[in-house]
This record gives sequence, C-alpha cells and structure tokens, in this order.
Amino acid sequence: MDTSRHEILRWENGKVSRVSDELSPEEPLEIRIDNHPVSVTMRTPGHDEELAAGFLVSEGLLHSRQEILRIEPHPRNAARNIINVFLAPDVSVNLQQLTRHVFMSSSCGLCGKGSIESVHQHFPPIVATGFQVPASVLAALPGKLLAQQKTFSRTGGLHAAAVFDCAGNMLVVREDVGRHNAVDKIIGWGLLNGTFPMNQHILLVSGRASFEVVQKALAARIPMICAVSAPSDLAAAFARENGQTLAGFLRDNRMNVYSHPGTIVFES
Amino acid sequence: MDTSRHEILRWENGKVSRVSDELSPEEPLEIRIDNHPVSVTMRTPGHDEELAAGFLVSEGLLHSRQEILRIEPHPRNAARNIINVFLAPDVSVNLQQLTRHVFMSSSCGLCGKGSIESVHQHFPPIVATGFQVPASVLAALPGKLLAQQKTFSRTGGLHAAAVFDCAGNMLVVREDVGRHNAVDKIIGWGLLNGTFPMNQHILLVSGRASFEVVQKALAARIPMICAVSAPSDLAAAFARENGQTLAGFLRDNRMNVYSHPGTIVFES
Repeated sequence: MDTSRHEILRWENGKVSRVSDELSPEEPLEIRIDNHPVSVTMRTPGHDEELAAGFLVSEGLLHSRQEILRIEPHPRNAARNIINVFLAPDVSVNLQQLTRHVFMSSSCGLCGKGSIESVHQHFPPIVATGFQVPASVLAALPGKLLAQQKTFSRTGGLHAAAVFDCAGNMLVVREDVGRHNAVDKIIGWGLLNGTFPMNQHILLVSGRASFEVVQKALAARIPMICAVSAPSDLAAAFARENGQTLAGFLRDNRMNVYSHPGTIVFES
Repeated sequence: MDTSRHEILRWENGKVSRVSDELSPEEPLEIRIDNHPVSVTMRTPGHDEELAAGFLVSEGLLHSRQEILRIEPHPRNAARNIINVFLAPDVSVNLQQLTRHVFMSSSCGLCGKGSIESVHQHFPPIVATGFQVPASVLAALPGKLLAQQKTFSRTGGLHAAAVFDCAGNMLVVREDVGRHNAVDKIIGWGLLNGTFPMNQHILLVSGRASFEVVQKALAARIPMICAVSAPSDLAAAFARENGQTLAGFLRDNRMNVYSHPGTIVFES
C-alpha cells in the first residue's frame, strides 16, 4: 500500500524540526451493485474488490462466489474510488431496500440498519464441527500479524485483520483505517479466492472486538475470533449465542476466553 | 458508566483459571427527530442526549442550542435505547432527505453520504483568531486524559475524547466503543452546556485522527485537534484546508504537527 509523504513539524523535548513523514491514505469508496450506488465508506485504498465482496457478504446479500459475475472499477472514475459489483444473471438483491438502508463508514458494520430491530442480522449459529486449536498456537498469532503489519510500523495509523488456518498458518492479512473494512477485506478475499465459507479458520483483529467484527465473522462462518485488545459485552454475548469462540487480550503469553472455550486445547 | 461482569477463562503461561472480568457495554441507540428515526448507532450507553445533539451538529443539521426544544428517551422504551430530539417550533430539517441518507455505526462520521460527492460536509473554514497554546501545554494533555479514563483502565475497550481550554484545563471527557461517538458526545456536551461554538478549545482523541474526527471538530468550530496516535493523510489535508491545527503522536514529550503550526507556541 502506498503512503503519502508530508512535510511536518516535529517537536521533541523542546526542540522543533522540520521532517518528512509518512501518512496512511484515506479515501472514500463508493460500492455499487450493477451500477447502483449502495454504500460509501472511508477506506484505505487497495483490495477494493475484496472490500466490496466482503461488505456484501457481511450484509447478508451475497453467499457464494458464483453470485458475482465480475467486480470492476467504474470506467469514468480515474481515481478508482467507485467499484462495481456485477451480479450473475440469475441473482437479484432488493436494491429498493438497499438504497434506503445501506450506508457505511470507515468502521461500520451496522450499515443497512434503519431501526434497532434490524441491527442483528440473521445468520444461523455455528455448529460444533470438531474444529480445535491449541492455546499455544493462538498465543503466537499476534506476533505473526505484527511481523506483517508493514504499513502500521511506518505510519502507526491502521487497523489490521488476518485469517489463519487451525495450525496457525497466516493465510492473508489486510490493513485499513477502518477496523471493519479490514475484516470485510479478509472475508472478500476468502470469497474471491475459494476459501469460503471460512469454517475452519481463525480471525485475528489488531485492536478491539466489537459486535460488528463478531457478526461479520459469523456471516463468513468463522468459528473463532481473537483480538489483541478487549471485546465489548455485546460482542461476547453475540459470540456466545452463535457458537463462536471469542478470545481477547492475546498478548504476553496470555488470553481471556469469553465464549465456547471447548474449541481451544489448553495443554498442561 | 456501568460495566458488566462476565465469567471467563483466563489462560496465562500455560495455566487456565476461571475469573470474573469486566466488559464495557455496547448497545444500539436509535436517534429520532420529532419521533422520526434518523440513525442507529452502536454506542456505549450514557450521555445519550449529548450523543444525539452532537451527531446532529456534526451532520450539519443543528447549529445552536436554541434549535432544540428538548431531548428525551422514547417513553415506550424501557431500555432507553431510543432517544428523541424535539426541535423548536420554528426549526425544520429535511426529514425526507434524512430518512434516505442518515445511518451511522459505532465509529461513523460519514452518515448521510449517499455518494462520494456528498462525503465532504460544507462547513466554512476556521479563520485565525489569535488562539494560541504553548507546546508544553499540549504535551501534558494525554496524561490528563489518561487519568480520567476510568473505564478504559478497567476494560481496555473504549475510545476517549476530551476538550480543553487554551490553558490546558480539561472541561469534559467522554468514552465510547466508537471513536466518533466519543467526539459527538463532546460536541453535544458543548451545545447543551453553553460552550458552543467551541472556537477557543482543543479536542484530544485517545487514538487515531481520521477524516471524520477532524470534520466533526470543524462542525463545532474547534480550531485545534490533538491525537495520541497518527492521523490519516485525508485528516491532515482536511485540517490544512480548513484552518485547523492538527497534531499527532502526543506522547513522551513530543508531537508531530501536520497543519497550521502557528497556533502552537514553541518555547525555546
């Protein structure tokens, strides 16, 4: 991902200097379905196809790769800040409903919710499948993520999400100014690359686990969510209700497990 | 703010224990204008009146305390997750437009943006007014914020925002699962308590400075934004265009200044 260079003033221990600094880019992306605008999000440019696909999966509108004909930037948009998802001929979504209800922001997982009743998407819960991961494997995930967070180390300005297999191998990492965009990119990567549903996988987020992160994971059928920082109470309750394992504060060889610890093998 | 207690498993250096943990609450809030639903946000309960008022200011719909008749929870809502902003008799907003365009999430400052063209609100830029703050005063702000972040220290799960006068006195601090909700609460506090416009004030956010944070500050006429972490490039560009001072990485007696350093007095 490209960063942009800015001339800034640095003040340090009373001394002022003029330095060149790198900042992470933030630009709007308008997502369209069959040329119909459905959402604008502030995002880190890059992997826009994944972001669009993952967003539509998270919103419950798409369920398989086959429903997408192709994804392409809008031809009249030089800056590539409009992306078009063309559906397969036999697929339809309720665009009328979508026009009224889908807007998103850089950290939005709640788009399309016109009232409190509609906040909860209705994805079926995860059913136990024998999926299990040793605690020591989980404890090693944040280190693997950090090693890949190249932009973060330069700009300090991005959220990251990554997905791992149950042996702890990192499959893909994505960074974004919006935590939920990073998760959508992961889910879109899975959908577009044949790793879907992601029902044998672990999602790791670099910061906190909000309700929306856990709900997006459920849309992709991800049974285990790990966070470097804390979950909210609603995130924990949602994971518990939906058969997902949620672990937080993965750091310094420790973790807290908020739901369904049976999928974690605690070696003695 | 209340936290909720959860029984969790803690794994630490290979040992598993069952402990009681505090989690920060996250619940949806439906904001209504004259009983008309305009927005649902995931937020940390508390200061909902401020959140509603600040959101409507940030969206450019309200501009003064006098435009609000009263703010009250919806009477049929025991959990108080619906809040109603009643406008003064002579005030009107375009609810038709609002119904189609305003939705927000826990970190959303982009609500109401149906296309890329509408991402930028149109608030006039800040004009220099002689407002100035010594660098050493700014450097001390994060420590004052941290001392007040009581919930954060218990749950590790919240963003914080605070507003200071130009002598570095903290006027109010708000915490929320959503960074932008914390900022909206600050702005709503100002509107409802007679500190508005906030054109002699400094906004500090506990994490990153996104485009939306800087734009919300502009809506409240805040001339100086400080962040403990990094800004995005769009946040820096927006601040530069709109006459706002933006400083980041306020930590360890240093800071980076991305725009309009003339309001900061660098003592030698």
